[in-house]
Amino acid sequence: MTVLMSPDELEAELRALGAARYHNRHPFHQLLHGGALNKRQVQAWALNRYCYQAAIPIKDATLIARTEDADLRRLWRQRLVDHDGMAEGEGGIVRWIALTEGLGLDRDMVTSRHRALPATRFAVQAYIDFVRDKPLLEAVASSLTEMFSPGIISERVSGMLASYSFITKETLAYFNARLDQAPRDADFALDYVKRHARTPEQQRAVIAALGFKCDVLWAQLDALHHAYVLPGMIPPGAFGHGGDWS
Amino acid sequence: MTVLMSPDELEAELRALGAARYHNRHPFHQLLHGGALNKRQVQAWALNRYCYQAAIPIKDATLIARTEDADLRRLWRQRLVDHDGMAEGEGGIVRWIALTEGLGLDRDMVTSRHRALPATRFAVQAYIDFVRDKPLLEAVASSLTEMFSPGIISERVSGMLASYSFITKETLAYFNARLDQAPRDADFALDYVKRHARTPEQQRAVIAALGFKCDVLWAQLDALHHAYVLPGMIPPGAFGHGGDWS
Repeated sequence: MTVLMSPDELEAELRALGAARYHNRHPFHQLLHGGALNKRQVQAWALNRYCYQAAIPIKDATLIARTEDADLRRLWRQRLVDHDGMAEGEGGIVRWIALTEGLGLDRDMVTSRHRALPATRFAVQAYIDFVRDKPLLEAVASSLTEMFSPGIISERVSGMLASYSFITKETLAYFNARLDQAPRDADFALDYVKRHARTPEQQRAVIAALGFKCDVLWAQLDALHHAYVLPGMIPPGAFGHGGDWS
Repeated sequence: MTVLMSPDELEAELRALGAARYHNRHPFHQLLHGGALNKRQVQAWALNRYCYQAAIPIKDATLIARTEDADLRRLWRQRLVDHDGMAEGEGGIVRWIALTEGLGLDRDMVTSRHRALPATRFAVQAYIDFVRDKPLLEAVASSLTEMFSPGIISERVSGMLASYSFITKETLAYFNARLDQAPRDADFALDYVKRHARTPEQQRAVIAALGFKCDVLWAQLDALHHAYVLPGMIPPGAFGHGGDWS
């Protein structure tokens, strides 16, 4: 395909891709929000996802470091604020740690990331590498999964609250903030790629970048599903291997 | 020398290094604040220094992207705020552009950086590369030239205002903000290196990092001095080569 799409056609393509490949369609997400997991499995999800959360400001600073455009840097900087907070004890990463503590996990174990699945760490690093190495337009586009995040968050929060006695509203406080932050970020990034993808090649690259990011999220749930839903597949060293859940 | 210094001894070494090698000792600085330059020469200084100013947030985001320490990231983020501002039209880079416009330079020419000296661009890139590639402690230490910046700024502002009819207080507004920002940043970075340089090797590396950064600043003034003070040495393509000062 070498046809130049209109910006709105490009947006429609991106939305179609998300509808098909965003990780809300992954079986593990269905199990998670549907209440079909036990506490160990939810813990495994939370401590693996910590690796992703902790990498986000690194990914965002990586993007900021790449651009000579002060406006883009300034707007993208808000993501650092969201995740690292305005003061100690604030921000998305702290809220995610609170979520893992609410699930009874040891903070040091979580933040060390030593018990996370290798596949989680590799997927997260692939995301940072992508944002560092690909053209800036694609780096921006790789954030577009946030277009689909309000849906999965509402589903996840209501499902988990309804289904698990060990989950409280306070534990899930992380997601409340994201419901405001993600659409703001997604609107900006979507507008950016619609304005800057001016050739068929750039439009294809933008779509591929979103596909890549869907893969990063999907692979993390694949790894969780393989290790913690299928019996006996927790890899050496990971949370729960050999019955060690500490 | 393999002796471990106390943190205060380390600070004394750093201050001694700055006293010997900070660019306030460079002849070009003496000429600049002493009123001995003509307007073309001051313009050349301003447009070359723009390259350095524009690179600072990229350097700082590069450092932020390197650390897993959310506290360090959050504190260092303030430097992005200082240079890129809280809104469009604010921040240190915009103030530097105002300085160049106050000197009668075309904004697009300045921000394109095409008429800057190659040596300026190379020195600036070396700084970014250092912060990206060296151990984090050394990356932090390379910012410590700000310990010495209030002195040079007061000297520069009072000297330039007294000496040049084409310089106004408004033109130099950039430096007012820096008088508050630089000591705050320097205090934090100095405290950081005093706490984290725990071996003689690390202490030597910290001192070397400050030395490197002094070189980066000194090399920029060397290039200006060679091109714009010595006769006939403006390199091809640079501001004023062949009599083209546009």
